[in-house]
Amino acid sequence: MGHLNQIDILVSEVGPRDGLQSVAATMPTELKLKWIAALANAGLREIEVGSFVSPKLLPQMADAAQVVVYARTLPNLFVTALVPNLKGAEAAFKAGVQKITLPISVSEPHSLVNIRKTHVEVYQEVRAVVALRNEQYPHIEIEAGLSTVFGCTIQGEVPDDDTLRMATIMAELGVDEVGLADTVGYANPTQVRRLFTRLRQELPGVAGSAHFHNTRGQGLANVLAALDAGVTTLDASQGGIGGCPYAPGASGNIVTEDLVYLLESMGLRTGIDIDRLVAAREWLRQGLPGEPLYGFIPDAGVGKNFHYAKKAV
Amino acid sequence: MGHLNQIDILVSEVGPRDGLQSVAATMPTELKLKWIAALANAGLREIEVGSFVSPKLLPQMADAAQVVVYARTLPNLFVTALVPNLKGAEAAFKAGVQKITLPISVSEPHSLVNIRKTHVEVYQEVRAVVALRNEQYPHIEIEAGLSTVFGCTIQGEVPDDDTLRMATIMAELGVDEVGLADTVGYANPTQVRRLFTRLRQELPGVAGSAHFHNTRGQGLANVLAALDAGVTTLDASQGGIGGCPYAPGASGNIVTEDLVYLLESMGLRTGIDIDRLVAAREWLRQGLPGEPLYGFIPDAGVGKNFHYAKKAV
Repeated sequence: MGHLNQIDILVSEVGPRDGLQSVAATMPTELKLKWIAALANAGLREIEVGSFVSPKLLPQMADAAQVVVYARTLPNLFVTALVPNLKGAEAAFKAGVQKITLPISVSEPHSLVNIRKTHVEVYQEVRAVVALRNEQYPHIEIEAGLSTVFGCTIQGEVPDDDTLRMATIMAELGVDEVGLADTVGYANPTQVRRLFTRLRQELPGVAGSAHFHNTRGQGLANVLAALDAGVTTLDASQGGIGGCPYAPGASGNIVTEDLVYLLESMGLRTGIDIDRLVAAREWLRQGLPGEPLYGFIPDAGVGKNFHYAKKAV
Repeated sequence: MGHLNQIDILVSEVGPRDGLQSVAATMPTELKLKWIAALANAGLREIEVGSFVSPKLLPQMADAAQVVVYARTLPNLFVTALVPNLKGAEAAFKAGVQKITLPISVSEPHSLVNIRKTHVEVYQEVRAVVALRNEQYPHIEIEAGLSTVFGCTIQGEVPDDDTLRMATIMAELGVDEVGLADTVGYANPTQVRRLFTRLRQELPGVAGSAHFHNTRGQGLANVLAALDAGVTTLDASQGGIGGCPYAPGASGNIVTEDLVYLLESMGLRTGIDIDRLVAAREWLRQGLPGEPLYGFIPDAGVGKNFHYAKKAV
């Protein structure tokens, strides 16, 4: 994890994937590449640059392989992609990603609606992806991104034990990391602390990122709870674009700009320059004209008492 | 504090004061009363209903006495007001408030710009207000609301020691409670935990409310930090209206609707009904046509897994 040198928290930008896949318009590839370059230039060390899904399902992601190839030329950037199945994994591995994230619904009803697979079918797919990686691409990381962990629009409550069981199964199947995602903005800080604490206790080498949506305005409070539980990788999207196209009302990842301000203010180094980060919004504006962009820091600016976090002595 | 029965956290609604004083339009008194009644009907136990300042300075607050008289007729409501000086305190006491909050800038440059008083002059005023209360209105509570605690637009950084020194002086002058306010949205959770922890350790009987603005989107993360430090009273304003008219860019208290969702989701009882609370926005819409209202819960609704907090067994 050389991309984690000299930072305390890894902010993983998911806007080019979670953001762009959820807006109706397709961002032109050329502008997408400029946006990703600007994000990397602002100091983001990890970007989920696309999703290897059927272009019929998500035409916004049709250029995923091309975007990966370009992103790999950017210095100091770890290039990841979302992959729903073996076919997507093959394409992502070939394109040259450094990590893939497999979205896994803890709620089986959600899994059936979202990818039309039972849990058993999902396990088979994960096993096949891990086998391919082990045989041909042993250097590529695999993360399982557990979704609907904090509640599900279909199932309602999702028991903690279901999440921990799924995380254990994923680890047994050979994934390297298990992250927890609040797919529809249902999470509260009590839940977040409880679940990430258990995940880190029960699967210490495997516990991964926190992925929150700001649908109910609770995103940064949940981030604080995740930090308390020891989480060091946080997903966010520039301008808060993004959501789950299959879960109505699930719009908006937490805003990268506001997250970086929170972390740096708290003395946690992200390696990210806020001015350059805010400047990168320009490409999003050009690439998705009329699309609303969220975030407070771009308008309010940093406080007069703000300074970037320094290395603890 | 009988108004705190059967709740874990007191949400103190400051919209009718901090909110209304910061918008250009003046809300008609009749609609203001209907709004306050609707807020009380939603279960809010404490409302800061106005500010006893010169109507020339803040015409939006000219009806403060009338509003207090009406609010006192509402069941289960603790009626408070902001009071900047002895003259205001006399009027507030006469009108029948149950508590006053004296705004005290820890930053002396801010105090000079805001109320044209040095710290020594401020102490004299506080002494006079406490003396009047002690002689004629011994049952009325006095809170010092320390402002610019987390940073100041004029001074920049405000040392923690300055805040603790001011809190101690206020306690010595005879105020009952000292709250800490993030006047301009500069606070971060590390600071919040540190300051409220010290306040509660050094002045255990006196430590009071947390007052945050959401200027930089950090409001609910700061709330979580305050809860961790043991704070049990949180200021908020419906629709996130409000700010400091003397501090540019300081718009927006934290949103009551989103705060109540956070607290109840976490298992902390507020006594507030979210549906009735959201319904109360109607009066704000009628009373301040065109004024932007903030908050996620009114649009997104509560999650399918949401339930109100229950009494811990």
